[in-house]
Amino acid sequence: MAKIGFIGLGNMGLPMAGNLVKAGHEVKGFDIVPVNLEGGVKRGLAKTASVGEASKDVDCIVTMLPAGSHVIEVWGGDLLKSARAGTLVIDCSTIDIESARRAHELAAAAKMLSLDAPVSGGTVGAEAGTLALMVGGDKAAFDRGKPILEGVGKRIVHCGDPGAGQAAKICNNMMLAVAMLGACEGFNLADKLGLSRQALFDVVSASSGQSWAVTTYCPVPGIVPTSPANNDYKPGFAAGLMLKDLKLAQEAARSTGAATPLGAEAAQLFQLFVSAGNAGQDFSGIIKYLRGAAN
Amino acid sequence: MAKIGFIGLGNMGLPMAGNLVKAGHEVKGFDIVPVNLEGGVKRGLAKTASVGEASKDVDCIVTMLPAGSHVIEVWGGDLLKSARAGTLVIDCSTIDIESARRAHELAAAAKMLSLDAPVSGGTVGAEAGTLALMVGGDKAAFDRGKPILEGVGKRIVHCGDPGAGQAAKICNNMMLAVAMLGACEGFNLADKLGLSRQALFDVVSASSGQSWAVTTYCPVPGIVPTSPANNDYKPGFAAGLMLKDLKLAQEAARSTGAATPLGAEAAQLFQLFVSAGNAGQDFSGIIKYLRGAAN
Amino acid sequence: MAKIGFIGLGNMGLPMAGNLVKAGHEVKGFDIVPVNLEGGVKRGLAKTASVGEASKDVDCIVTMLPAGSHVIEVWGGDLLKSARAGTLVIDCSTIDIESARRAHELAAAAKMLSLDAPVSGGTVGAEAGTLALMVGGDKAAFDRGKPILEGVGKRIVHCGDPGAGQAAKICNNMMLAVAMLGACEGFNLADKLGLSRQALFDVVSASSGQSWAVTTYCPVPGIVPTSPANNDYKPGFAAGLMLKDLKLAQEAARSTGAATPLGAEAAQLFQLFVSAGNAGQDFSGIIKYLRGAAN
Amino acid sequence: MAKIGFIGLGNMGLPMAGNLVKAGHEVKGFDIVPVNLEGGVKRGLAKTASVGEASKDVDCIVTMLPAGSHVIEVWGGDLLKSARAGTLVIDCSTIDIESARRAHELAAAAKMLSLDAPVSGGTVGAEAGTLALMVGGDKAAFDRGKPILEGVGKRIVHCGDPGAGQAAKICNNMMLAVAMLGACEGFNLADKLGLSRQALFDVVSASSGQSWAVTTYCPVPGIVPTSPANNDYKPGFAAGLMLKDLKLAQEAARSTGAATPLGAEAAQLFQLFVSAGNAGQDFSGIIKYLRGAAN
Repeated sequence: MAKIGFIGLGNMGLPMAGNLVKAGHEVKGFDIVPVNLEGGVKRGLAKTASVGEASKDVDCIVTMLPAGSHVIEVWGGDLLKSARAGTLVIDCSTIDIESARRAHELAAAAKMLSLDAPVSGGTVGAEAGTLALMVGGDKAAFDRGKPILEGVGKRIVHCGDPGAGQAAKICNNMMLAVAMLGACEGFNLADKLGLSRQALFDVVSASSGQSWAVTTYCPVPGIVPTSPANNDYKPGFAAGLMLKDLKLAQEAARSTGAATPLGAEAAQLFQLFVSAGNAGQDFSGIIKYLRGAAN
Repeated sequence: MAKIGFIGLGNMGLPMAGNLVKAGHEVKGFDIVPVNLEGGVKRGLAKTASVGEASKDVDCIVTMLPAGSHVIEVWGGDLLKSARAGTLVIDCSTIDIESARRAHELAAAAKMLSLDAPVSGGTVGAEAGTLALMVGGDKAAFDRGKPILEGVGKRIVHCGDPGAGQAAKICNNMMLAVAMLGACEGFNLADKLGLSRQALFDVVSASSGQSWAVTTYCPVPGIVPTSPANNDYKPGFAAGLMLKDLKLAQEAARSTGAATPLGAEAAQLFQLFVSAGNAGQDFSGIIKYLRGAAN
Repeated sequence: MAKIGFIGLGNMGLPMAGNLVKAGHEVKGFDIVPVNLEGGVKRGLAKTASVGEASKDVDCIVTMLPAGSHVIEVWGGDLLKSARAGTLVIDCSTIDIESARRAHELAAAAKMLSLDAPVSGGTVGAEAGTLALMVGGDKAAFDRGKPILEGVGKRIVHCGDPGAGQAAKICNNMMLAVAMLGACEGFNLADKLGLSRQALFDVVSASSGQSWAVTTYCPVPGIVPTSPANNDYKPGFAAGLMLKDLKLAQEAARSTGAATPLGAEAAQLFQLFVSAGNAGQDFSGIIKYLRGAAN
Repeated sequence: MAKIGFIGLGNMGLPMAGNLVKAGHEVKGFDIVPVNLEGGVKRGLAKTASVGEASKDVDCIVTMLPAGSHVIEVWGGDLLKSARAGTLVIDCSTIDIESARRAHELAAAAKMLSLDAPVSGGTVGAEAGTLALMVGGDKAAFDRGKPILEGVGKRIVHCGDPGAGQAAKICNNMMLAVAMLGACEGFNLADKLGLSRQALFDVVSASSGQSWAVTTYCPVPGIVPTSPANNDYKPGFAAGLMLKDLKLAQEAARSTGAATPLGAEAAQLFQLFVSAGNAGQDFSGIIKYLRGAAN
């Protein structure tokens, strides 16, 4: 079992850190918000007073932070200065690829191993330890990180070089958003044409229009019992988070010169949906917005 | 076994009519293009000289025509006049919903039973008799038509009232086009980010970005052996036909007041792709266009 | 002065017919809605009991109807049957180009002269007699129609052959909608960036971003005193009518194979705006919707 | 007359610096590309060996650089260190707003006055000294900078606080791109409908569809003699530069949470156009791409 420093004990980080404790690791935690830190203590983490203290004398450091600028600031600040050479540093945040790559460079310069390992599965998956992790970084780092990451998730996929985890996540989520909007538009059009939702589902789920968005997460109620549509569009995966990921994808597309017209349109529609006050709804709730409902 | 009149012996109609012969039906054929008619004879159809002759003294008439206006013209002309009351008339064309409903009305006024039954599966499915058919019309008509349609396809789904078959097809294909474009954009972005196609496929196919467009018809070569991407984007399902279906969906959305922003954008992108000379390519070939290739 | 039959005495038709009376013409009116017909009487029209009666023994017939199907029905019904050969028939409705051309064909077959002459300027322009008219039809018809149309409008432009008036109107209005949305997005972005609206207006109105949408009809209040933005977005030009015109443009683009990606997106955004209950607002009010306001 | 340091002697910077010499200023120049530096000497600039040397003992420093990162690097490096307190530092580059604001902060921290002053008018305007400059920064800085900027341009507009110049430029250019695409789509649709370009121009230029894009820079040849359409779409304003500005606008929209659906779509279309090899064409040349031409 490993000694781990965990920095960032928010909605996602806290249960993830708790699961590392359950998995038998010795975990020190830090968060700038005192109440988050107390939450960590309740889950068996040792409390620390700073990033530096959390990073000292551990085998592995995990960060779970809101944005790329935070990761750069924390890694480039006391974290890498305090860690001993050869420490494995894993960023589980979902951030822009440029920052992810910069973080890897900072780690390499400080003689650390590093991984970007954004997660999917939401707070439910974080509590249950069933997250999927898309991991970027070299083979040696991945081999060392895998047994630790198995403490927080079920599917640990090595996607490639530094940044590849972030790349895989934003590509997947862009494809998801686009397919979901297509599904929403299809079901709305079917409604208008008097075609029953069940009939459309039956056709599509066995045909070329099939997608996870339809068959697992169907945006109309009454079809797939576990989909948020049957729970008043409570997330699930909140629209505000989908917007964040779509913006990261657009940022990557812009900086690399990739044309993504439907990804761009999806980002705009989720911006409109979120601007109308729906950040906290499940992202599939945008089906109502497309029908003209305010929320 | 039934006596059937088959009108429209083009790329799709000809093999479908041939399969009805193979299924043991007695089939009379008509097409305004002589060479098509000769093709029918080779497949065992009795040759007729007119729509009226093909429609006389049969149990069932099948039409397979290019557009709604043709269906209205043929049904509203000699077909319904020549058929005996109670004949089952099935339109297998993919046409606009308004025309499909109008055709049903004409049939009802002439005391016929009627079905709209657009197919999917392309010329390959038409030859193999493995088409999927989405069927609209009342229960009595469907019950009579099903055994006949089983001669041309494998999946015969009753979608609902008159027009429901067309509605299901255009909703499915709109969802397909949108998911495919999302997949293309995701793979293109991955390329630019240095994420391998296989890694993205592995993540997406087991995750929320999954769709038939990715897992069965993957738009990049080297991943799914049977996808047109591995056959130089030969169709499969030609871009020109996808554009036709997207336009039918937009027409339905426009007339019913459904908002379909991604469906509209997909229609525009396929219009650009087709205008650039790519009507005959598989629709998944649009991935190259999105990268800047002219064709 | 001419004898004129005027069919369709709604919000636009009624004041237009009244202005023809003021201009010295002898005008018979018809409308299927009795109260509209009474409104005509108050403005000096002779009341008739049918399309046929209104069309008999006149030099010119004007129709002002909601959609292409009405025009085809009225022209193809009693109107052309009752008119004497050589009558000039003018349709001032805004309708789809296909119907407009079909109407011209019907008129030609009945040995009438015909014009399509859609108007812009709204109910205010209709009352004031200051409408702009975009006119399609042959030169002889235009020459005969011009003096009559000068009774209802100020700018009478001969755009070309049959249907050219409709074509000019939908192209203009599509360009307007697109430029207006661009203006709305620019002002909204400026707000978010802390750039004052007046400063942006000053730059744009003297620069390459200039458009009628900005300089004459500015979508933010406080800049151009006469713009609907200063009157709580009362129309002006209602969003519902803009949506109608954008749909006509999309229909024309679809049937001719023209790619109009921004026109399509504009149609979708106005569909969303109207679906959210804003059909009666001025079309520039969409600026609030883009900010997240429900209405 | 002022002592000026000018850093960045590329296509735009070189003629601008030359015009400052013509206006009577004493100008020292620097560029990392030797041939650019020699070009400066030919226009009467004193040659320097470094940013630091160019920044020493001057009243004003002007930078003209490709992107925000360069400006931050140059200002944050030797420029501000070498300049004497109270020097006016003007950045004429078109860069992202965040970098522009950061540059102002760096200048303020170093006790300098600063302006962001992006230009429009292209290389032609730069040579002729007829650029338009949109300027952000405080009043004192603007008052000091205006007489200097009058040496390079004709319209010097104070848009507001630090960053306001960049904000005004990207809002204007986003509005321009959107209006231009609307114009292109309108003219293309008119072509397909058989409406003459001149007739559409005549209607639109006197009506609500009017924009600078139509009336000054008409994207079809034969209408406005000076527009690039009459010069084989030679820029003018190159598509690659328009794409750059649209990306800056999208970046600003993304970071501030502004919805700009048509701006986003415009950025995507120009990405497609540029990816197809058309970066060097005038941006109005996209009209051909929308028709299906590869370039």
